[in-house]
Amino acid sequence: MGRSLDVPSLVASAREGAPRAVARLISLVEDGHPTLREIMAALTPYAGHAHVIGVTGSPGVGKSTSTNALVGAFRAREARVGVLAVDPSSPFSGGALLGDRVRMSDHSLDPHVYIRSMASRGHLGGLSWTTPQAIRVLDAAGCDVILVETVGVGQSEVEIAGLADTTLVLLAPGMGDGIQAAKAGILEIGDVFVVNKADREGADATVRDIRHMVSLGDRTQPHLWRPPVLKTVAASGEGVREVLEAIDAHLGWMTDHGVLRDRRVKRAGDEIEALAVSTLRRRMGNLRDEHGIDGLAGRVVDGTLDPYAAADDVLASLAAR
Amino acid sequence: MGRSLDVPSLVASAREGAPRAVARLISLVEDGHPTLREIMAALTPYAGHAHVIGVTGSPGVGKSTSTNALVGAFRAREARVGVLAVDPSSPFSGGALLGDRVRMSDHSLDPHVYIRSMASRGHLGGLSWTTPQAIRVLDAAGCDVILVETVGVGQSEVEIAGLADTTLVLLAPGMGDGIQAAKAGILEIGDVFVVNKADREGADATVRDIRHMVSLGDRTQPHLWRPPVLKTVAASGEGVREVLEAIDAHLGWMTDHGVLRDRRVKRAGDEIEALAVSTLRRRMGNLRDEHGIDGLAGRVVDGTLDPYAAADDVLASLAAR
Repeated sequence: MGRSLDVPSLVASAREGAPRAVARLISLVEDGHPTLREIMAALTPYAGHAHVIGVTGSPGVGKSTSTNALVGAFRAREARVGVLAVDPSSPFSGGALLGDRVRMSDHSLDPHVYIRSMASRGHLGGLSWTTPQAIRVLDAAGCDVILVETVGVGQSEVEIAGLADTTLVLLAPGMGDGIQAAKAGILEIGDVFVVNKADREGADATVRDIRHMVSLGDRTQPHLWRPPVLKTVAASGEGVREVLEAIDAHLGWMTDHGVLRDRRVKRAGDEIEALAVSTLRRRMGNLRDEHGIDGLAGRVVDGTLDPYAAADDVLASLAAR
Repeated sequence: MGRSLDVPSLVASAREGAPRAVARLISLVEDGHPTLREIMAALTPYAGHAHVIGVTGSPGVGKSTSTNALVGAFRAREARVGVLAVDPSSPFSGGALLGDRVRMSDHSLDPHVYIRSMASRGHLGGLSWTTPQAIRVLDAAGCDVILVETVGVGQSEVEIAGLADTTLVLLAPGMGDGIQAAKAGILEIGDVFVVNKADREGADATVRDIRHMVSLGDRTQPHLWRPPVLKTVAASGEGVREVLEAIDAHLGWMTDHGVLRDRRVKRAGDEIEALAVSTLRRRMGNLRDEHGIDGLAGRVVDGTLDPYAAADDVLASLAAR
């Protein structure tokens, strides 16, 4: 594949599952490439089949090991699997291939597993369209399951809940008792809770704590999904089958209750809003570069125009573009 | 003054310098009150006379003491002085009156000094219009000088440079050697550097360091203002006269070189942009509340509309509002 951009053939290759075409498309997403509009238009009709599963948790709970184990379990079913490791703090983009291969060494040579780490761009104050678009690439490439792994640092845990159909929250004994989990806001976002490293001391107490906190939430909304709290030792594969069953059960529940479509509509709405805001910001930036705001600002400084009227003028100029 | 809002009379009172009217208007600014459009339109013709001076520096350098000393020095000239203490991290708004009075106890009973602390709203990713509007209130109320004091925490130092005509950067011996100052990005924003607590050990070394770093900057742009590096002991008033002279010199230089107007136009442009973005965000929020995005999002989920085309539709709806 050359460096010239033949979007239709690139999209066609990706749809056939060619790993390099998939990787190239995700790189274009990361770069915010001008052809994304064309690419997304070509991919959209073929997306919507993958079950998007978010995997989050604090550093040290074993996210990579758990993701690795889940990939193995899904592969045993012959599912085609995509993995997006999103690092919101990383200034680096998708080039971290060596790291990916080391982390996911069990699956790095499997042609039915796509593994990719991504920097999540800092879309200040707004929603990011980067991850939804990368998900769409993997989805249209025929992935049955897409695991989106995020480092649990504050906001990103909540954001992953908006991106995924099913959100897995990982904990480890002694790290996440119920109250801490409540404080971190993860009780609201978890569809399945997994206490990993369950061979360590305190695992049962952590499970009890989380179950108790989750049950408190349930009382006020008795007809909602009741998130199970499971135990795993991801390194040995112990408990992974039960996690897969819980993920399946959640997908079934969502489908039966119309929740799956609602979540996806919400997610598409977030993406649309993010794209619209991004376009508006770019137009605003152009307006400043072309000195379209300077003249108005000068009149505000001179006291002949008030800033709100000036902002109205700016909005009218934006609308006319 | 009652709680009902008679904007014209409130503005008239503020212009006559009535402290309660000034305080009320700044509260309305903090609250993002719907009448702000009317208020700003009424005030704009009367603003533009005050010399806006930013005072910033790390915690512990003596910002409040220095501001207090500067207020005294300006009052000795019979200037009318406004003080805005902006705390970007504070969740509290203007109610911190007791704190203000304690900090500025020398001037709390002076009718020609307006002192106000403000929380700077987190306008995510955008520019804030709160502080420019509060400055406009004080300006139109007849202040000759407005001191805007910010806690130096990362971004806020850079932001104050955009708000002020003249930016004073305070340092203390041993805290701010040249390299640290360069790292913190304060070398670029300071118009006047002041090493406070100059009776402490290491003051001369700090002055030398900063002078050296400032001179390095000068070499590449020899015709620019050369920021002086001064020493004060604000608690005793030592060196404050020289700081005032440097502030005057900077104002004179800006006026002679057309820089004053340029800075104010840039500032008004930032405010206009912040107001426009804020309006767009509100409209976008309304659009979601009214389910104007849900229908489009549903079509994206169904694969019959791509997200960029949906975003175009959203932008068209926004423009039509």
